[in-house]
Amino acid sequence: MKFGVVIFPSKQLQDIVNSYRKRYDPHYALIPPHLTLKHAFEATEEDAKNFADKLRNIASNTSPFSLKTTKISSFKPVNNVIYFKVDPTNELNNLHAEINRELNDQKTEYAFVPHITIGQKLSNDEHSDIFGSLRMTKIDHEETIERFHLLYQLENESWTVYETFRLGKE
Amino acid sequence: MKFGVVIFPSKQLQDIVNSYRKRYDPHYALIPPHLTLKHAFEATEEDAKNFADKLRNIASNTSPFSLKTTKISSFKPVNNVIYFKVDPTNELNNLHAEINRELNDQKTEYAFVPHITIGQKLSNDEHSDIFGSLRMTKIDHEETIERFHLLYQLENESWTVYETFRLGKE
Repeated sequence: MKFGVVIFPSKQLQDIVNSYRKRYDPHYALIPPHLTLKHAFEATEEDAKNFADKLRNIASNTSPFSLKTTKISSFKPVNNVIYFKVDPTNELNNLHAEINRELNDQKTEYAFVPHITIGQKLSNDEHSDIFGSLRMTKIDHEETIERFHLLYQLENESWTVYETFRLGKE
Repeated sequence: MKFGVVIFPSKQLQDIVNSYRKRYDPHYALIPPHLTLKHAFEATEEDAKNFADKLRNIASNTSPFSLKTTKISSFKPVNNVIYFKVDPTNELNNLHAEINRELNDQKTEYAFVPHITIGQKLSNDEHSDIFGSLRMTKIDHEETIERFHLLYQLENESWTVYETFRLGKE
């Protein structure tokens, strides 16, 4: 089965993100708006406890930190994903690095670009139209992140939360 | 905003339940398969921390327990909900009672009938057809429940996990 690690931002930000995802993201119904800390990876159900122990340990050694987003960007030409760009911070980079180091030794394919997806699986024309109209959108949102989540994927491709990890808590 | 408290059973049971929900439950895309411990209730985002503290406390004083389901039932004539009947146990009853006592003092409307919904919002004819064909289905599933979850609802009516509570853990 597949696992992943994500941050769910506040309801306020999730509602804003969903107002775009509803139209532009075919994964809209499969998972709430999120910032991915570790991409989907294969493991067994028995591994989950071990992962949770490691993630709990990481969380306890990480303080709550600020998440700030101010603009809409795109990964084109790598792919046609449109997203809320999240300001990279040391806290977020360290959390990402530590989770990926602890959960497996594979090198990640891409540099970590913290983001919250609002559109994906778009044709080139759709991408041009949508990103063209959204790229100048001003966003001014900042909040404190206090937790992250270990998820697993069901057969229908939707995601369920296995466990939550609170930053700075045992 | 709305909050609720649920148990997500194992992936195995969720996949089985979703094979029915896909056809019979319009809430299929809004929340993974679950057993409701506390129905949706209104509270503010600031209340969430307080709820989480109380639920963490309840969880730490509750041991993991067995969940067993052996048949498909219906709430008709109260409503046209079809569900996996979960064997009532003292552990489940106590957990339900304590959560509802701690989180608000309103009396709950119904007696607690532990269940995992597989179909709802069915017309009387649909209910007759579907329940008629499912009522003799034999299920033989037992698993250990080790956690429950506090959720909140987004504007699009889907649910996000706020926090997980592990039974028997601080």
